[in-house]
Amino acid sequence: MGTSLALALREHDIDVQLSDVRAENVDTAVSLGAGRPGPEGAPGLVVVAVPPSAVSETVVAALREWPEAIVTDLSSVKSEPGRAVAESDGAARYAGSHPMAGSERSGPLAASGQLFEGRAWAVTPGSSSGRRAVEVVHELARLAGAAAIEMDAAEHDQAVALVSHLPHLLSVLAASQLHDAPSAYLELAGPGLRDVTRVAGSDTWLWQQILSGNAEPVRSRLESVRDELDALIAALGSNPAAVGNALTRGKSGTELIPGKHGGTATASVFVQVPDRPGSLSTLMTHAKDSGINVEDFRIEHGLDRPIGIAEMMVPEERADALVDVLANLGWSVYR
Amino acid sequence: MGTSLALALREHDIDVQLSDVRAENVDTAVSLGAGRPGPEGAPGLVVVAVPPSAVSETVVAALREWPEAIVTDLSSVKSEPGRAVAESDGAARYAGSHPMAGSERSGPLAASGQLFEGRAWAVTPGSSSGRRAVEVVHELARLAGAAAIEMDAAEHDQAVALVSHLPHLLSVLAASQLHDAPSAYLELAGPGLRDVTRVAGSDTWLWQQILSGNAEPVRSRLESVRDELDALIAALGSNPAAVGNALTRGKSGTELIPGKHGGTATASVFVQVPDRPGSLSTLMTHAKDSGINVEDFRIEHGLDRPIGIAEMMVPEERADALVDVLANLGWSVYR
Repeated sequence: MGTSLALALREHDIDVQLSDVRAENVDTAVSLGAGRPGPEGAPGLVVVAVPPSAVSETVVAALREWPEAIVTDLSSVKSEPGRAVAESDGAARYAGSHPMAGSERSGPLAASGQLFEGRAWAVTPGSSSGRRAVEVVHELARLAGAAAIEMDAAEHDQAVALVSHLPHLLSVLAASQLHDAPSAYLELAGPGLRDVTRVAGSDTWLWQQILSGNAEPVRSRLESVRDELDALIAALGSNPAAVGNALTRGKSGTELIPGKHGGTATASVFVQVPDRPGSLSTLMTHAKDSGINVEDFRIEHGLDRPIGIAEMMVPEERADALVDVLANLGWSVYR
Repeated sequence: MGTSLALALREHDIDVQLSDVRAENVDTAVSLGAGRPGPEGAPGLVVVAVPPSAVSETVVAALREWPEAIVTDLSSVKSEPGRAVAESDGAARYAGSHPMAGSERSGPLAASGQLFEGRAWAVTPGSSSGRRAVEVVHELARLAGAAAIEMDAAEHDQAVALVSHLPHLLSVLAASQLHDAPSAYLELAGPGLRDVTRVAGSDTWLWQQILSGNAEPVRSRLESVRDELDALIAALGSNPAAVGNALTRGKSGTELIPGKHGGTATASVFVQVPDRPGSLSTLMTHAKDSGINVEDFRIEHGLDRPIGIAEMMVPEERADALVDVLANLGWSVYR
C-alpha cells in the first residue's frame, strides 16, 4: 500500500523518498518508479505503511526523528496509534489515515498508483492533532484520488468493526462450517454461498493483526450478533413471526448501504454466455448498442455446461428494454 | 418457477398443461407460451410448484387424483413432503426435486425457460419411491438443462442448511447490525460488506417459509456456529493464535467450494472503467483480443467519481499477461 501511494504521488511529480526494513523492497519500489531511496534531508510528510503491530512505534519514532514533518499512517485500526502518539512529543503533527483500498496481494510488486481512485479514505485526527496535520492528510487523500471522510479514531474503529471486521468474521464462520460436509453437499452451492464466504479467503496473517488491534469494538459487535443468533435459534421452528422479523430487519439493513448512484433502483437481467473468449465482449457490445448503462455485472459458471450466467444490473426502468434488445440479438435472456 | 419449467419443457415440444389456484396466473403462463390450461385427460407427470407450506398436501392430493402419474415437487426443503408422501397411497410414484435456481422475482411474468440451464438440480427419492419415478425426475432435470444430483431428502436438507440457509442467516445477522450506525460509518463500506449482505436482501416471506420447513437442520448448524462464535469472542484480544486458527479454518473452508473449472486457481485483475455506456464493452473487447478467458467479472463503483473498478478473474498464470495487454491499451490496471 505504501508503494501504491508513492506511485500515486509521483503522478503529481511529488518528490517521494522510500525507506523499508527490507532494502530489496526499496529497490523494487524504485524500479517501479515510486520514488528514490531515502531518507535524505527533512521530509515535509512521513507516511508510515507498516504491518499493524508496528504502526505505533514507527509513528512515534518518525515524529521524533523529523521534528518538522507531518506524520500519518495507513493502518486499518486507528485508536491504538492515536493513543500512543497522544503521549509522545510532536503529537500535533500527527493525524491518522485509513484508505479503504487494498487487494489480497501485498508487497511492492502488487502496487498500483490507481489503488485509491474512487475509494473512501478515513482521516482520523486525535484531540492533539494540529489543523495543519489534518489539512495535509486530507490533501494526501485528494492527491491519491480518494474521497476523504473525517471522523475520530474511536468512531473509525467502531465503523470498521461494523462494516468490515464483523462481516469478515461472519464470512469466516460460514466458511468454517463447510469442513465436515460430504462433497455432494457442496455441489448444491450457489452464488449466495460464494458471496457470503468470499472475504473469508483473504490473508489470515494480516487479518489476525487487524482483529487484535480492534478487539474491543469487534467483540462488542460479535456479542450483539450472538444475542440475535440466540434469539434466532430459540425462534426457529416455534416462532415463525420472530424469524420473519429477523429476516425483515436484515433486509432493511441492506438498504442502508449507500447505493452506487445515490440509491436509484436497479434490476437484474440474466443472460447465458458461452464460456469462451469473446462471448462477454460481444454481449457488452450489444448492451452498449442498446444505450443502456450496465451499472453492475457478475458472471457465474454453470455446472457441467460450457456456459456462464451473466447478471447485468441496470436501472429498473430500462431492464425490460435490455431484455428485448438482447433477445432480438439471439441471446438467452431473462429477468 | 413452475412457469419457467413449463417453458423449458415446451422447447422440447412436450405437451404441458397448467393449473393454478389463481386463474389469471394460468392465463399469463399460457400467453407466454408455457402450455395450455389443464388438467385434461391423465397426465404422465405432475410437477407441484407451490409455496413451501402447501407442498405436502398438494403432492398427496395429486397422487390421489391421478393414480397413473409420476409426481414431483420443486420445493427447497425435502424431508417434510417426503414424510407426508411416505404415509399416503401412491408413494412409489413420487420423487422429490429441488432445482438450485431462482431469481428474486416470482410469478409467471418472471419466468424463463433458461432458468435451470447449467444449475444443479437435487433429486431426492424416498425409501418408497419407485425406480420409474426417480428416472422420470432425472429426465425432467435433464430436459430443463440442469445437472441432476441424487441424494436422500434428509441429506438434501442438511446440505441446503449448510450451503444456503446458514449463509443466508449469517448475511441477515451482518446486515441487521447496520441499523444503529451513523451514516458516516456506512460510507466506509467496501465490496466485502456488499458481498456478505447481498442475500439478506432476498424475499423475506419466502425465506420465512423455507426456514420453517428446515428448522432442525438449520438450528443444528446455527448452534455449531454459536460454539465457534463463543470461542472467537473469548479469544479476541487475549489469544491471537486461536483467532488465527479460526481465520485459517475459514480460509481453508472456502477452498472446499467447487471451482468453476475444476478448481484451477484464478487471480484478480483490477481495471478502472469510466461510468458510461460502452466502457465495459471496450474493456471486454480488449480482453477478448488478448485471447485470455475472463472467468468471472464484477464491477464496483467509486465514491464521488464517475468511474467503476472492474475486477476480472482470469487463470492465475495469465493475469500478468492481461495486465500488460490492458496497460498497453491505456487502461489503468493493477493486480
